[in-house]
Amino acid sequence: MSSLTMPHAPKGLEGVVATTSRICYIDGEEGKGSLPTKAQLKDLQERLAAERKLDPAIIDMLRSFPKGAMPMDVLRTAVSALGLYDPEQKKGDHAANVSKSIRLTSQIAMIVAAYDRLRKGKNVVKPDASLSHAANFLLMLNGEPPSQTAERALDIALILHADHELNASTFAARVTAATLSDMHSAITSAIGTLKGPLHGGANEAVFHILEDIDARKADPTEYVRGMLAQKKKISGFGHRVYHTEDPRATHLRKMSEDLCKSSGQSKWFEMSRKIEQFIKAEKKLNANVDFYSASTYHVLGIDVDLFTPIFAVSRISGWSAHVIEQLDDNRLIRPRADYVGPSYPQHWAPIDKR
Amino acid sequence: MSSLTMPHAPKGLEGVVATTSRICYIDGEEGKGSLPTKAQLKDLQERLAAERKLDPAIIDMLRSFPKGAMPMDVLRTAVSALGLYDPEQKKGDHAANVSKSIRLTSQIAMIVAAYDRLRKGKNVVKPDASLSHAANFLLMLNGEPPSQTAERALDIALILHADHELNASTFAARVTAATLSDMHSAITSAIGTLKGPLHGGANEAVFHILEDIDARKADPTEYVRGMLAQKKKISGFGHRVYHTEDPRATHLRKMSEDLCKSSGQSKWFEMSRKIEQFIKAEKKLNANVDFYSASTYHVLGIDVDLFTPIFAVSRISGWSAHVIEQLDDNRLIRPRADYVGPSYPQHWAPIDKR
Repeated sequence: MSSLTMPHAPKGLEGVVATTSRICYIDGEEGKGSLPTKAQLKDLQERLAAERKLDPAIIDMLRSFPKGAMPMDVLRTAVSALGLYDPEQKKGDHAANVSKSIRLTSQIAMIVAAYDRLRKGKNVVKPDASLSHAANFLLMLNGEPPSQTAERALDIALILHADHELNASTFAARVTAATLSDMHSAITSAIGTLKGPLHGGANEAVFHILEDIDARKADPTEYVRGMLAQKKKISGFGHRVYHTEDPRATHLRKMSEDLCKSSGQSKWFEMSRKIEQFIKAEKKLNANVDFYSASTYHVLGIDVDLFTPIFAVSRISGWSAHVIEQLDDNRLIRPRADYVGPSYPQHWAPIDKR
Repeated sequence: MSSLTMPHAPKGLEGVVATTSRICYIDGEEGKGSLPTKAQLKDLQERLAAERKLDPAIIDMLRSFPKGAMPMDVLRTAVSALGLYDPEQKKGDHAANVSKSIRLTSQIAMIVAAYDRLRKGKNVVKPDASLSHAANFLLMLNGEPPSQTAERALDIALILHADHELNASTFAARVTAATLSDMHSAITSAIGTLKGPLHGGANEAVFHILEDIDARKADPTEYVRGMLAQKKKISGFGHRVYHTEDPRATHLRKMSEDLCKSSGQSKWFEMSRKIEQFIKAEKKLNANVDFYSASTYHVLGIDVDLFTPIFAVSRISGWSAHVIEQLDDNRLIRPRADYVGPSYPQHWAPIDKR
C-alpha cells in the first residue's frame, strides 16, 4: 500500500534541491563569498593558533579507548565529548558558533594527530602557534616540522576538501542543526556520516587497491579488469553531481605526480594513472577527489586509516559554515516517508491469540 | 545568483517524500508490519534482558564527565563510545544490525539511568533481568522497583514515542547510514538531532512553563496569554505533519490525568488542560505528543532534563528499524543546494592586493 498522493522525490533525494546556500557553487570550481583580505586572513590564522590546546580530559579519553579503535569512531566520540567542555557550550548565537567552528577546526586536527601518536605508544606533541594549520598538523603527527613541499601539499589537499555543497555529511549536519540542536551535535553527525565508504571512506578503499597491486606486483590494468569481472566496486570513480571530471581530481593528480616523483615513490602515481585511464576507457567514469588523494596522503607518510579523518580535518570548515548558514535562517528539515507496508487498518489480536 | 534550473523543494523539505518505508504509517495511528507473536515477544524480551550490561569503561567515562554536563550531550558521547566497544563493531550485515539495535536499546536506557545516579552522587544500580524494559529503567533510575501504575505509564509512553516516520532525528540517522557508515554513527546522529528544542527538547520547554506557573501561583490562561502577547513560542502545540489532534496526545492526556490524580498531584494536569483549551481556542493549535508527556514524566519523578533522553530511550527502536530498512535497499542521500551567493566567476586577486 502506498499512502501519500504528493509527488515522490527520487531515491536518495537525487536531484532534489534541498536548500539555498551562499557557501559553495559546484560547477567545476567554487566561489565562497569573497576571498579574505590580508587582515582577515591574519585574524583567522591567529584565532586558529590561539585555539591550539586540548583539554587534558580529552587526551585522557583518547588514551582510554580500546586498542585498535578506528580513528573515525575515536574522532566522532572525541568531538561529541568536546561539546561537554566547550566554554560557550550554552551559547548558540552566530558569534558563538563562529568561535566554536574555529575552535573545532584546531581541535579536530589535534585529536587526529594525538590519537595516532598515542596508539603508536608515542607522546602527544605540543602544538606550535607559529606554524600554519597544515604544518602544525604534520608536526603533531610526525613529531617534526614538515618540509615546505609536504606542508604545501597538505595545505592544498585541505583547501580542496574544505566544502562541497550538500554532500551527505554536510546535509546531515544541517538536518541536525535545524532542530536548533548545537554545533557539536551537528559536527558529530557529520563525522559519523563521512565515515561511510560511499563518502569519506572512499580514499581508504582506493589505497587498499593500490597496496594490494603493489604487494602482488600485479599489473594495475589487469588487476582492475579482474575486479570488474568479479563485479567489485572500484572506489574513487564517478560522482553523483559531476558528470565531467571532478576539478579537484585535476589538482590532486598534479600534486600526486609531483609528490610521488620528488619523494622517489613514482610507482603510486603511475599505478593510479594506469587505473584511471583503464576505467575511463572501459566504464566512461572519471576519477573523483578521492582517487588521487590516496597516493598523495600515502606519500605524505599518513596511515591509510587516517585518510578519512584528514578529510574531516578539512571539511570542518564547510560543515560549520553550512550549520551557521542553516541557523541564520532556519527551518526544521522534516521530509515525509511513503508507507508501503501492509495496508491499514490491520487486524489487532490480543497477545494470547497470537 | 541562482544556479540550478531543477525544481526547488520547499524549505525544510516540507512535504517532500524522501523515501518509501514499511515501518510506520502516520495517519492518526500506526501500523508496523504485524504485532509479534507470543514467542517473538518472549524472544525479544529475553534478548533485551541479556544485554543489560554496561562495559565498565563506559561507566568510568560517565563518571569522568564535567559536573553539570547536559544529559543529551552525555548520551550522544556515550553512544558514540559504545561503538568502540561493540562486539560486532566491524559487522554491518542485517543480523548484526538487529543485534546492535537490541543491545543499544538496553544500553541507552541504562546510560540515562546510570548518569542520573552518578551526577547525584549515588551508586549505579544493578540491572534486573527479570523485569520489563520499563520497570528495569525505573529501578536503575530510582534504586527501587516501580509501582505497577508507574511501570505501565512509562511503558505506554515508550510505546507512543517508539517511531514516527521521517522525523528529523530518524531522517538524520538514515542520511548517516546511507553512506554505509555504521549503526552507532547513525544513532549518534539521531541523538544529536533529537536534542534540539524544535524536536525532542519540546517537552522540557513545556515543563519549564508549568513549573514557572506553579512557582508564581499564576493563572495558567493569563500566563500563557502574556507569553503570546510577548510573541513567545509555546512549546507542545502544533505539528508539521498532523493537522488534527496528534493521537499520541490523546493517550498521553489520559495517562497524565490518571497519574496526576492517583499521586495527589492533580495540579499539573489541571494546569496543562487549561493551557491546552486556551491555545486551542486562541490559536487553533492542537496539543502534540510533547505537551502531556511533560506532566506525565514529572509525576513519575523524572528530572526535567531527562525528558529528552527518555524520548531517546524509546525512539532507539524506530531509529534502528529505519537504519536497517535504509541499509536493506540503500541509496546515498545527497540532495543539491541552490547557490545564491555572489555571481560566478569572481575576480581573483592575490593576497598582497587584498
